[in-house]
Amino acid sequence: MLTLASDFGSPYPAAMKGVLRSRGVTDLVDVAHDLPQGDPRAAAFWLRFVLPEFPPGVHLVVVDPGVGTDRAAICVRAGDHALVGPDNGCLLPPARELAGEEDDVEVYAVDEADPRSSTFHGRDVFAPAAARVHEAGVDAIGSLDGFRRVDDYDDFEIPRAWVEAETAAGEVLVVDDFGNAITNVPGSFLDGRVGETIAVETAAGVREVPVVETFADVNKHDPLVTVGSHGYVECDANQGRGDEAFDLAPGRAVTLSFEEALAATVPTA
Amino acid sequence: MLTLASDFGSPYPAAMKGVLRSRGVTDLVDVAHDLPQGDPRAAAFWLRFVLPEFPPGVHLVVVDPGVGTDRAAICVRAGDHALVGPDNGCLLPPARELAGEEDDVEVYAVDEADPRSSTFHGRDVFAPAAARVHEAGVDAIGSLDGFRRVDDYDDFEIPRAWVEAETAAGEVLVVDDFGNAITNVPGSFLDGRVGETIAVETAAGVREVPVVETFADVNKHDPLVTVGSHGYVECDANQGRGDEAFDLAPGRAVTLSFEEALAATVPTA
Amino acid sequence: MLTLASDFGSPYPAAMKGVLRSRGVTDLVDVAHDLPQGDPRAAAFWLRFVLPEFPPGVHLVVVDPGVGTDRAAICVRAGDHALVGPDNGCLLPPARELAGEEDDVEVYAVDEADPRSSTFHGRDVFAPAAARVHEAGVDAIGSLDGFRRVDDYDDFEIPRAWVEAETAAGEVLVVDDFGNAITNVPGSFLDGRVGETIAVETAAGVREVPVVETFADVNKHDPLVTVGSHGYVECDANQGRGDEAFDLAPGRAVTLSFEEALAATVPTA
Repeated sequence: MLTLASDFGSPYPAAMKGVLRSRGVTDLVDVAHDLPQGDPRAAAFWLRFVLPEFPPGVHLVVVDPGVGTDRAAICVRAGDHALVGPDNGCLLPPARELAGEEDDVEVYAVDEADPRSSTFHGRDVFAPAAARVHEAGVDAIGSLDGFRRVDDYDDFEIPRAWVEAETAAGEVLVVDDFGNAITNVPGSFLDGRVGETIAVETAAGVREVPVVETFADVNKHDPLVTVGSHGYVECDANQGRGDEAFDLAPGRAVTLSFEEALAATVPTA
Repeated sequence: MLTLASDFGSPYPAAMKGVLRSRGVTDLVDVAHDLPQGDPRAAAFWLRFVLPEFPPGVHLVVVDPGVGTDRAAICVRAGDHALVGPDNGCLLPPARELAGEEDDVEVYAVDEADPRSSTFHGRDVFAPAAARVHEAGVDAIGSLDGFRRVDDYDDFEIPRAWVEAETAAGEVLVVDDFGNAITNVPGSFLDGRVGETIAVETAAGVREVPVVETFADVNKHDPLVTVGSHGYVECDANQGRGDEAFDLAPGRAVTLSFEEALAATVPTA
Repeated sequence: MLTLASDFGSPYPAAMKGVLRSRGVTDLVDVAHDLPQGDPRAAAFWLRFVLPEFPPGVHLVVVDPGVGTDRAAICVRAGDHALVGPDNGCLLPPARELAGEEDDVEVYAVDEADPRSSTFHGRDVFAPAAARVHEAGVDAIGSLDGFRRVDDYDDFEIPRAWVEAETAAGEVLVVDDFGNAITNVPGSFLDGRVGETIAVETAAGVREVPVVETFADVNKHDPLVTVGSHGYVECDANQGRGDEAFDLAPGRAVTLSFEEALAATVPTA
């Protein structure tokens, strides 16, 4: 099995599928081709969320704002999985998740040969490399011509939030197609707090909303805070757009506070 | 074969695909993942239209505004097909269509076990249940652990229009990606009327347009009324957007009249 | 293998997939279903770009503004490939590319039998015809009932630009999902000119930008001119939208000039 993910929109991904089919890879699964454009961090978030659901396979990931520059093409082996894409860091967070506790991750630089274009390495470099890994098998990456183990490669961590018992300060990682604003505050911050009121502070001001188990626990269109399926705190609206309700977008700061909510709700003066 | 339909956008459907692949279901077909968000009625319309084209299979359908509440997960057997999704009514209209005249429909409640999240039962409840049905076969649903035949479940009918010989009053069910406003007036209302003028009355006023066989029977961008491929009357524009031409949207009332058109066209005073 | 391309959006393509599956075609590959609506020329451009990456197969292509009129259904054999769709010219440019230098292209008219609808021949005419070609094999098209070799069919060429050594005048063929405005000026016009300044003249005025190898050779959001992966000159912006930067859209005229840039950059007076 070979999965494909990119920020290409359409119809560029079909050119990659053609290259893969022409090289004998028949079992293709689209993950997404509308990942946020040119945003390796968002790609890392989504792929770390989605890829661990899949059985072992090769994952072609092309979010590549540096296409045609001297950034390398890499292949990351993570346990029984392999990821192929540009060396911009976005493969490492999902790779660590796929590798699990054993942290069995190896990175290989891939010779780019002589790509047909300077602007579409998904077709010219990464798809052919992924097809070779798929054919040889994940265990054989080290023996493939033009694949060279490296220790020096781009990496990043999903940024961590600052979390205390009653307050957490983080940022929005991504906004999904429902408008849910997914923060980097771990869901454990809300453990045992369902039913309480929380203050959500953004550049637009402070909004107090209930902490709930799921969307339908508030009225239609009402804002809420909950733990999403990826384990992070989300600022949402029931059947509405949380990003608009809270004026949030990827990268924007958000502070969550039970103390402030309490102060505002029960003035002591 | 297992088909997938949802209102998830992207990349959430990939998590469901991963779950299915991890459970050995390899033959996946995407029906649509941009069904109108949180709208079980629109899902029912589209799936009743599309699923009967498919050979027998399992159909995973997740349009689930009540995710995480106590609404049940259900599996509907319809002839040789099975549908798996939330108990909000949207599975029944397509199920009846798949069952055909024998009306061979059975509904099973599915134990939800202990979902990992309160907000993504597509991944945590419905995909695993669909994988089990796929593996066991449609005939074996009744013998699956945790599947229990029920008589009490949500249901609805696609709303019916009021139709007389010269006038029909209905509503818009859905607007497709071309902007065609698909009403619930059955196509038979237009039998033998191609070439005549019809009055389309909406909240925005009355517009008189030709009844035609197909889009290209009027000039580019001109409005028209025709029978769509689903058998309903549509308010369209040739290579333009019918919803804008007629100021229509899902749920809006529309009255179609040959009498009014006649009155307007041939004033008697 | 059978590929599908259309301008249908969603979920109409699923009805075609159902028809194909019901006729035993299991190996389906989506090329794109958001091709520019009702624009056979754009479809021809994209398919000529993408389909040659695929191994021999049947390609179902439905961009069909004339659906339901007397335009024919055709099947084009191009070497080991076959294309099935409406007779509006859009199959021929990709067919010639697939046939290669031998120019081994044959066109067959396909009897439409009695379609269920006047507005969805993708489901009612083209998908069934493609399934028949897929089952019989590309070599057997001539022997299929209802397939008749014809010499009279719609055709067009992608429009050619006027190109001299220092100046080229063309038009925008398509704008991709990144906002790259892809012109019909062949990439060879920029041979050896990387690093020079070029004047891009549109209805909105003249803009002088660098000719570069790839996007990242300019600052983020800055405009540029480069050769795209399809071999044509593109007007782009690094991680931004070239169509907005240059005020371009499909069909708009664009003149590229090194002389004018020189004149503007180094005034002699």
